[in-house]
Amino acid sequence: MGLDKKLSGAGLRGQSAGETALCTVGKSGTGLTYCGYDIDELARTVSFEEVAHLLLRGELPDAEDLAAYRERLMQRCGLPEPLTEVLERIPADAHPMDVLRTGASMLGNLEPEGSFANYLEATDRLLAALPSMIIYWHRFHRDGVRVDCDTGSDSIARHFLSLLHGEAPSEAHVRCLDVSLILYAEHEFNASTFTARVCASTLSDMHSCIVGAIGSLRGPLHGGANEAAMDMLEQWDTVEQAEAGIDAMLEAREKIMGFGHAVYRESDPRNAIIKSWARQLASNPDQQRFYEISCAVEAKLLAAKGLFANADFFHAAAYHFMNIPTLLFTPLFVCARTSGWAAHVNEQRQNNRIIRPSADYIGPEPRPVPPIETR
Amino acid sequence: MGLDKKLSGAGLRGQSAGETALCTVGKSGTGLTYCGYDIDELARTVSFEEVAHLLLRGELPDAEDLAAYRERLMQRCGLPEPLTEVLERIPADAHPMDVLRTGASMLGNLEPEGSFANYLEATDRLLAALPSMIIYWHRFHRDGVRVDCDTGSDSIARHFLSLLHGEAPSEAHVRCLDVSLILYAEHEFNASTFTARVCASTLSDMHSCIVGAIGSLRGPLHGGANEAAMDMLEQWDTVEQAEAGIDAMLEAREKIMGFGHAVYRESDPRNAIIKSWARQLASNPDQQRFYEISCAVEAKLLAAKGLFANADFFHAAAYHFMNIPTLLFTPLFVCARTSGWAAHVNEQRQNNRIIRPSADYIGPEPRPVPPIETR
Repeated sequence: MGLDKKLSGAGLRGQSAGETALCTVGKSGTGLTYCGYDIDELARTVSFEEVAHLLLRGELPDAEDLAAYRERLMQRCGLPEPLTEVLERIPADAHPMDVLRTGASMLGNLEPEGSFANYLEATDRLLAALPSMIIYWHRFHRDGVRVDCDTGSDSIARHFLSLLHGEAPSEAHVRCLDVSLILYAEHEFNASTFTARVCASTLSDMHSCIVGAIGSLRGPLHGGANEAAMDMLEQWDTVEQAEAGIDAMLEAREKIMGFGHAVYRESDPRNAIIKSWARQLASNPDQQRFYEISCAVEAKLLAAKGLFANADFFHAAAYHFMNIPTLLFTPLFVCARTSGWAAHVNEQRQNNRIIRPSADYIGPEPRPVPPIETR
Repeated sequence: MGLDKKLSGAGLRGQSAGETALCTVGKSGTGLTYCGYDIDELARTVSFEEVAHLLLRGELPDAEDLAAYRERLMQRCGLPEPLTEVLERIPADAHPMDVLRTGASMLGNLEPEGSFANYLEATDRLLAALPSMIIYWHRFHRDGVRVDCDTGSDSIARHFLSLLHGEAPSEAHVRCLDVSLILYAEHEFNASTFTARVCASTLSDMHSCIVGAIGSLRGPLHGGANEAAMDMLEQWDTVEQAEAGIDAMLEAREKIMGFGHAVYRESDPRNAIIKSWARQLASNPDQQRFYEISCAVEAKLLAAKGLFANADFFHAAAYHFMNIPTLLFTPLFVCARTSGWAAHVNEQRQNNRIIRPSADYIGPEPRPVPPIETR
């Protein structure tokens, strides 16, 4: 068995599955770049809409293009009636990722991409409609209301928070969520993006690719770490409890979500950014305590195991401080990553060969079919 | 650039992406084996339900197990009301694969897999319900009826044909469709199965994996070749027209669907089997003419270009002779391949590492973010 087979048997780790001009992970700058721009600088200086424009249209917009792009997205936030009827038929206890998977799939029936020339239209519609879908379903069941998805906002972040809370969000919350969407927008050939590219390689439509990617992000080894971090942190009321809790988890060899990474070796460049935002948003004693507990857990795992917090860990605190329910954490990841997924679909289409690997056979040798009486 | 990168840049062709005990393609026997059994012998001696049992439960059933498995599947053909309500809201002109993608996704909300221990329940339900879904939607729009999906049939093939035509099908038609489902059940790491395995590698649920696979099979480079073959063949009324038409297509360097294969080099072992069935079903002069035209096209492409007919080409004739509308050809592929997809999902889960390859970066060098005024 050759070296390539051994490597590829383990999840294709380290194997190149294609080319990309969209992203580097662990290669230059602070460790994450989108189209050559460092994530740290992007998170400080631009908006999510500028990042989406960069990924999908190849360049950062000027002021005029940005205003037009914001307006274009906000005109696409409304949901067609057959789609809201579908969302209403999804049970209140459904998995929120299953809701988005189904909603995105339904949208593909109502507004199909048709030609690949409509790639930007299909993508922008999804970017605008996915936040509406998840909040529509959530508030229909939680509050018994049919929200009006045309919020007249100027950004995806403001739209999401307005629709969720039914009131104008603070500027700090809007900007924090905006930064969060930037951090989650793109991450090279992760499993959900690779799913989208495999699907795209059959020359399937955009909705199929995004639906497939949502299904992969749903898996607990991929998305969901921010939710798991939240569930863990909520157990503890004091730093002392948290430290004892971590000791017990390490003792029991439990996996602690929100730490370590498949590619990064020493740190995740997104952690310092979202941690700083969590600290800024902690505006009352309960929130400050939650932030301190988070910091204590981070410090303890670094000291005890050399484990660093990844992008997900302080997202728990940041989202919590914006009163975002835990069940909407991974759907927010979808709302952000759809920009990266769609950019990869487009890139795959530009220089395509169907992705069809081989397998090592480990099954029975050739054998005759036994008659049913002798089985 | 190393050899591995060059290979993998081209769709991972020839690269192993894992192990399987389910299938060999182009390795032994006539070229296709399921769990060591040759496709030719399976198609002659067993039923689709036996093949599904083999793939999903690891062995061919004895008579008692087979009877129980048939009953189990047939008890799961009915559709819950929220699902039929969703199907009714999907437009009449939607792509049938988008219908199945959405229906399977909706089912995942209504009857989630929950624990992986429920793998067989989730899979059998999908195997039984997918044929019902596509016919329900089709007949709702074509005939204005809400079909009763409990047909009391003893097989998926009989269920499909009964529901589609609203009357008992002939035994020859039932057996031909049964064989067709066997031929399409499984095919190693093709793009849709690989999509399902990438999704499964995040430890996502069965419905997400199947939904993603449907989306990949939708692509014209993967599923859909039997529909394309049908569309091509329908243009011609005589062998002479067909031969002239093929000449014109070759002259214009048009791609001819239903010929050649990514893995097989000399022939597709499924072709002779379905071709024989098409010949048997051709029961009137129109059908005999259609069959002769198909044979002429096959012979001409072999002589002119050394191209052999693959599994899809004579499926056009076989399905056409059963009065199956062309738009249902690729959905039938889904109904069959769901058995293979689910078996691969289960296999991936047994020895899992998340499938996360790398990429070769070809984008801009690190660069500062320009202020918006200077873009």
